[in-house]
Amino acid sequence: MNSFQIHNPTKLIFGKGCLSSIPSELSAYGTRVLLLYGGGSIIRNGLYYQVIDQLKELNASIVEFGGVEPNPRLTTVYRGIQLIKEYKLDIILAVGGGSVIDCAKAIAAGSLYEGDVWDIVIGKVTPVTALPIGTVLTLAATGSEMNGNSVITNWEKNCKRYFSSIHVYPKFSILDPEWTFSVPRDQTVYGIVDIMSHVFEQYFHAAESAPLQERIGEAILRTVMETAPMLVNDLNNYDYRATMLLNGTHALNGLLAMGERTDWATHEIEQAVSAIYDIPHGGGLAILFPNWMEHVATTKPEKIAQLGVRVFNLAKEGKSDTQLAGETIARLRTFWTSIGAPASLSDYDIDDKEIDLMVESAMAAPTIGSYVPLMADDVRAILRKSL
Amino acid sequence: MNSFQIHNPTKLIFGKGCLSSIPSELSAYGTRVLLLYGGGSIIRNGLYYQVIDQLKELNASIVEFGGVEPNPRLTTVYRGIQLIKEYKLDIILAVGGGSVIDCAKAIAAGSLYEGDVWDIVIGKVTPVTALPIGTVLTLAATGSEMNGNSVITNWEKNCKRYFSSIHVYPKFSILDPEWTFSVPRDQTVYGIVDIMSHVFEQYFHAAESAPLQERIGEAILRTVMETAPMLVNDLNNYDYRATMLLNGTHALNGLLAMGERTDWATHEIEQAVSAIYDIPHGGGLAILFPNWMEHVATTKPEKIAQLGVRVFNLAKEGKSDTQLAGETIARLRTFWTSIGAPASLSDYDIDDKEIDLMVESAMAAPTIGSYVPLMADDVRAILRKSL
Repeated sequence: MNSFQIHNPTKLIFGKGCLSSIPSELSAYGTRVLLLYGGGSIIRNGLYYQVIDQLKELNASIVEFGGVEPNPRLTTVYRGIQLIKEYKLDIILAVGGGSVIDCAKAIAAGSLYEGDVWDIVIGKVTPVTALPIGTVLTLAATGSEMNGNSVITNWEKNCKRYFSSIHVYPKFSILDPEWTFSVPRDQTVYGIVDIMSHVFEQYFHAAESAPLQERIGEAILRTVMETAPMLVNDLNNYDYRATMLLNGTHALNGLLAMGERTDWATHEIEQAVSAIYDIPHGGGLAILFPNWMEHVATTKPEKIAQLGVRVFNLAKEGKSDTQLAGETIARLRTFWTSIGAPASLSDYDIDDKEIDLMVESAMAAPTIGSYVPLMADDVRAILRKSL
Repeated sequence: MNSFQIHNPTKLIFGKGCLSSIPSELSAYGTRVLLLYGGGSIIRNGLYYQVIDQLKELNASIVEFGGVEPNPRLTTVYRGIQLIKEYKLDIILAVGGGSVIDCAKAIAAGSLYEGDVWDIVIGKVTPVTALPIGTVLTLAATGSEMNGNSVITNWEKNCKRYFSSIHVYPKFSILDPEWTFSVPRDQTVYGIVDIMSHVFEQYFHAAESAPLQERIGEAILRTVMETAPMLVNDLNNYDYRATMLLNGTHALNGLLAMGERTDWATHEIEQAVSAIYDIPHGGGLAILFPNWMEHVATTKPEKIAQLGVRVFNLAKEGKSDTQLAGETIARLRTFWTSIGAPASLSDYDIDDKEIDLMVESAMAAPTIGSYVPLMADDVRAILRKSL
């Protein structure tokens, strides 16, 4: 096993009614709050008003900034930083899903950095501090509520990049499953695909020995796959929503990546696609992951075979790893289709017109991925399979 | 799923050579260090000298306190508190296994409390602060390196009690698998039993819905059971030692207990036994747990059956939960015997002479345990089965 450090200082507050923790949690950091949210779903379901009530209890000064888009944009981050500086705010309260929280992290790091926050996003500059962040999560998906990652899109450059920093872990994250009831079925499915994809990106790692990490990944996958079919047909079920929230948080809070060089090639490719076409992240992953697996199975089928045996209950006897990998991929496609995930880029009317641009955009480095490092031609092949 | 909070601020530093992190990690808290350790195994294997070298790099003022016993004693805690106060120390560096770390936690909380630290241990007083603690772990077992729990024995009262506090989580814990190579086979086995028992105490919970937590528990149990037979025959294997360290940490760092009312009856009973006879904690658990399972299986076999199917690969078809539970318990006994764990109290020359005292000591409350709450007569029955 390789060496590693883990340090996850986020306090997770989970359960029915836990919004009431906002005043006591926020007060440790100040009362001048940037209230950041997305496209208005929190106004429609009433969460917005309940958060405002909690902030009033604290006598907080609130500067509101709604309208953070899915795939949050650099221009939005700039506007947030401007508000922080103009109103001398103490803390960001991000109410929403991964996009809102990712945006909050870039604002938090950029507010205390003199230069252009894009330098931080592309890794040119390492943040040494950040404004504190609290979150109220409304969607089981990205895990952003308990990690230090942030993905930001620069539309001018057709470029989606991410950064990680210990300084942007949320100080606290509030997860009340009831506030995820109103997530519609398609968004719920995209979240499920995102969670499973996060496990895959870490399950397919380059470390020789990581048995516990792999077993915990399998535990999350099994729990997701048991819960998902029930959840998509019963969107207001508290226990299913609670379980999916926990799955999402633990799929990307550092637990699965201990001592591993994780893969993430599929995410790089998906980000290249969605930086051009603005499709849902989870939709893109559902299309790309089986094709990534098929491509790498030609050289390294072992781990895909293991996944099939341990998670999809495949019988192992008398089969080669290549056969098992093929069955695993077929089962994964069937599962994702059964819950309503898309299966090819044509579902989003994407053809091969921009394929060169997508390949170029995905290749942030000469190779991407760790389980099997991919060159530009591999990425092109995976995209062609996905059309 | 029930509501809960998790907040685990410990930084885990894991891998070969990671002792070199000591100066930078300690320096955040001060340079006046209480160096706490156990019976001298760290002197025999040379770890002591390497820690001293690291402390010299920091120009630390060191007050040494060796000789912390297994099942650390209140009198030892008193002596540690006295040293902290006398030499005005900033931080405790605990080098050892769970006993040394547990002792450090009681000293840390007691040093900043005016009254008797026993009030904290028995829960009469809740600590509001504590001296910072760093740890260098030498044994995969208790998980104390990444939690806020401490078990202390009061010999005068034949009484072993524990407390938990957010204030005594180690600030950092250093886990280098190489420093666990010298743990002898019997202690290694006790550690393995302790880790599995920690999973059991949380797997057998009273919450209705905790599917992810149970699956992660099963992931740890499977990893322990795959690794243990290889490890006990190859004590200097880095990867096996590394895997077992990670198993131990994650078996009791809050992950498995999210939203659960966990059981812990078997630990209460074991503590009652070892407070009188001073037997190894892991040895006591190996004897008691199968008998606890047999006792509760008469009224609630379901979860034991599930454990057998999911972890011991039992075929389910055509069997009742009671049958499956019986097979599970038999498999567990066989497994523990195969790695050299004891199977009955007579292995430690314990007979029924003090059974009343043990029952009385175990019953801290009118009932103990959550999966099946036990009365004094249940505890007596489990102890009798274990003779």
